[in-house]
Formats: sequence, C-alpha cells, structure tokens
Amino acid sequence: MNFREEYTEKKNQIEEILKEFLPPQEGYQKIIMEAMEYSLMAGGKRLRPMLMMETFHLFGGQGAAIRPFMAAIEMIHTYSLVHDDLPAMDNDEYRRGRKTTHVVYGEDMGILAGDALLNYAFETACQAFDREPQQSERIGRALRILAKKAGIYGMIGGQVVDVKESGKRVSGEVLDFIYRLKTGALIESSMMIGAVLAGAGEEQVKSVERIAGKIGMAFQIQDDILDVTGTAETLGKPVHSDEKNEKMTYVVWKGLEESGKAVERLTQEALEELRKLSSEDGFLRQLLISLIHREK
Amino acid sequence: MNFREEYTEKKNQIEEILKEFLPPQEGYQKIIMEAMEYSLMAGGKRLRPMLMMETFHLFGGQGAAIRPFMAAIEMIHTYSLVHDDLPAMDNDEYRRGRKTTHVVYGEDMGILAGDALLNYAFETACQAFDREPQQSERIGRALRILAKKAGIYGMIGGQVVDVKESGKRVSGEVLDFIYRLKTGALIESSMMIGAVLAGAGEEQVKSVERIAGKIGMAFQIQDDILDVTGTAETLGKPVHSDEKNEKMTYVVWKGLEESGKAVERLTQEALEELRKLSSEDGFLRQLLISLIHREK
Repeated sequence: MNFREEYTEKKNQIEEILKEFLPPQEGYQKIIMEAMEYSLMAGGKRLRPMLMMETFHLFGGQGAAIRPFMAAIEMIHTYSLVHDDLPAMDNDEYRRGRKTTHVVYGEDMGILAGDALLNYAFETACQAFDREPQQSERIGRALRILAKKAGIYGMIGGQVVDVKESGKRVSGEVLDFIYRLKTGALIESSMMIGAVLAGAGEEQVKSVERIAGKIGMAFQIQDDILDVTGTAETLGKPVHSDEKNEKMTYVVWKGLEESGKAVERLTQEALEELRKLSSEDGFLRQLLISLIHREK
Repeated sequence: MNFREEYTEKKNQIEEILKEFLPPQEGYQKIIMEAMEYSLMAGGKRLRPMLMMETFHLFGGQGAAIRPFMAAIEMIHTYSLVHDDLPAMDNDEYRRGRKTTHVVYGEDMGILAGDALLNYAFETACQAFDREPQQSERIGRALRILAKKAGIYGMIGGQVVDVKESGKRVSGEVLDFIYRLKTGALIESSMMIGAVLAGAGEEQVKSVERIAGKIGMAFQIQDDILDVTGTAETLGKPVHSDEKNEKMTYVVWKGLEESGKAVERLTQEALEELRKLSSEDGFLRQLLISLIHREK
C-alpha cells in the first residue's frame, strides 16, 4: 500500500470513529445534534486525530482509551472553525466548499453548536474512563493536556490575539505567538495525548511536544503560502483572503521563498527529533513530509 | 450567626475561591483574562457552588478536590450567560446592573470569553487530579457529571429548545423539558458533584439528583414569577421581559397563584427527600427554603 492509499484508509477509519461518537439525532434538541454532525462531518484532513493515533502507535499504545480522545480533538478543532466563521468573527459563508454552520442553521444555533461541540469534546473524552478504568491516571493526564492546549494558554489564546491584532501589522514575535497557540497548540495536544495514553515517559512527552510545535508552525506557514499560491477549487475556500483582510502573515513578513524554506527547515528539524524517538521509517514520518508538499 | 450572615460568609468564601482559580492577567492574550474576570466577578447569588459545597459537607466530604469544581461550575454558569446575552441570542445590554461582556469588550471577544470560560472550567476542574491524586476515580466521575449536565443532554440542550421555540406557545411538556435542562441540569450537577466527591453511594447520588431537579424547577418558576412581580432595581435586570418577548413561561401557563403553589410544593418535596438523607436541620435546608422567598 502506498502512502496515499494508507492515508485514505486511516482517514476513513477516523471518519468511522467520529460517527461512532456523534450523539444520536433525537429529542426536542435534535437540531443541535444535526448542526454538530453537519460541521463535524464536513470533511477536512483529519490531521489531528491522525497525528494522535500515529503517536500512540509510535509508543506501542494499545487499548480503547485513544478513540474517544481522537473524536474529542476533532470536535474541538471543528467548534473553533464554527465560531471563527460567525458574522462577528471572520464572517465566512463557505468552508470546504459548503455553507458554514451559522448560514445553514442560523447565527444563534451556530453559537450553540460551537458550544455544544466544545462541551461534547470533554464529555466524549471522559468516556475513556469507562472504557479503560484501570488507566484513570493516564486519562486524567490526557484530559489536562486536552483542556490546557485548547484554552487561553493554547488555541483560544492565539485566536484572541489574532482577532485583537486583526488588520494591524504585528511584530514577528506576536505572529510567532499567534501561530504557536492558534495552530500549534492543538497539534501539540494531539501528539502529546497519543504519547501519554500509550504510556510514554515525561521526557518523551516533552520531545513530542517540541516535534509537534515545529510541525504546527510549518503547517500554518504552509497555509499562508497556499493562500497566495493556491486556487479556490483546490482549497475549497477563497484565496488571497489574508491580503484582502490586510492580515499579517509569515509570507508578508518574510516573503514567499523564505516562507517555503522555513516550512522545509521546521519539518526537517521535527523529523530529526522524531528519529531519536524511533528509527522506524513509518507512516508518521511520511505524513509529516507530506504536509510540506500539500496543496490544500 | 443567623441564616443571612451565614449565607454572606459562605458567599464571600466562594468569591475568594473564584478569584483563586481565575487566570492571572498577563500575556499578549491578557484581554481575554480581563473579560473572564469581568463576567465571572459580576456578582450573583453563587447558588451553584454553594449547593455543591453544602452537599459535599452533608456527606462528610473532606479535602481540596471540591474547590476547583466549585469554581468550574460557576464558570460554566457564567459562560452560558455571556453567550445568552449576545446580539444573535437575547441581545441584552445589561445584567446585574452592569453592561454585558460583549458590550464592554466587543462581540468577537464576547464569543471568545464565553468559549474561554467553558474551556477553563474543565481546565480548572482537572486541577483536582493534582490536588487529590488518590481520589482520581471520584474526580473522573465528577468530571463526567460536569460535562454531561452542561451539554446537549443538559444546559445546552435546554437552551437550544428555548431558542428554537422562542416566541412560540410551547406545550407544558416542552416547557418542562426546557426548565429541567436549561436550569435544572446545572443545579443537579452542582449537588451531584458535591455528593460524588464526598464519597456518597450510587443510590444517594440518585436521591441528590432528584432533590436538585425539584429545586431547579422551583428556582426557574420563581424566576418567572419575579419577572412579573419584581422590580428592575431589586433584580438588576429589566422586568416583564418574558411578556415583551412573548415568551411562554410557567406563569403564562398556570397563572401566578398556581405557580407560587408549585414552587412551594416542589421545595417541600425536595426537603422531604433531603430529610431521608440527613436529619440535620442545617444550612442547606435553610438555603433551599430561602429560595422560595427570594426577591431576586
């Protein structure tokens, strides 16, 4: 099986896991379950649960505790997109070629669907306690990482600064802060939780955090590049949106060529540190390399 | 010390706990910490953490694991108010006599402050694992209750139906559903978590859930009554808002007199079941009685 086939197979597995953990559509509040499914099952790379699963396997992880966490991280990622698209935020009507959640369900339900997904992410992750009760201590550690990296010291913190500084020419330091938190934190969370649930030691988890930090940064810079070089058809969203919104990006800061080099360099550094954890030339390594060359 | 003094003392203790668990105001994302404090420290009865603490004591609870959960439940209650006040929801400019969070910090920060409080509630509750590591199993159970009762099968679920049916004359069954979930679920969560962390048995926790359900229902009906009979000065919010919004309430459904009787009856039933758990004529009992006679 080549990389592309393996990727598709793993992505399909993740889609199944997401469906498994979505709440059934019933009750007077059924509309919110529909809005949750609409936004969660809208496609996407499923990069975060995939990184979580691969890191879990890297450390020889076994058992069922990982599955609810894989669903939970994607729910958190999705809620952040739903709220990000709201009229008072980026006011986007399309994402991945489909109408955004608040356009379909109304702005009030868009807010509530985001809230519901964030809350349900923790509800779902907590199911790990039932599935692997003897792993309660690890699950508790994983929950703490999930919460911290999604919050004001993680994704929300980055989002806050991004929104606050929107339209301003921020410094490289602030840009770095935004990227580390807004994009990097959930990638760190994904890989760290995979490591923790597999029983990795403290030093190994720290190493995973560094690797993931570099990958997250490279991923976001590649996003900036694609906003300039990509096409709306491939990306499933409008291009040149950063320029239109007068947004400070890595490409604006350093230029296209330097940005491309930064993506390459960060990825190589991450791969080097990964080699110290495992000499295996497995899927995770190929996945990280594929992110440099991605076109969407 | 009479009831009023004791209540004030306990309320002050809770204010201290909330301050203790609020994040320090620092970093590029400082504005979100300010918005979180602005909304969390805006006053209020602190009923949920108080019920949690009193139920914890009722079952002889000891140790520090309860404190982060007390802060967490108030953060969840507060986030729901912040999002409820948004322009796309109830569009309220004042709450407890102060400008609402989005009016002060902007609509985008209002959305993010709500998200931040919800996420930080779980981050805070997870601190219990560090404080009482030997209690991991109980803490896991408490987390599951916290998440479930705040989500689509609890508070958010009630909120969704309330928003969806807004302006419609809903049936008594739907009204009951909204009240049980929107208001009742967090009261149930508060008391159940207090019981679980104190080591109460499964049957006792179920009994606590029933008591809290009745108290929550009585509390919401009393809210409906006060919207008709209260004054804006005492309540710190506009009165007759239900009538203005053509909202179906218990008072509209059953009339003022029947509503008053329902509050009285539900509270008596709750007190009776509480008596079976403990014969003590303590603060919790007085607190529940005080809720019938409250004027705000």
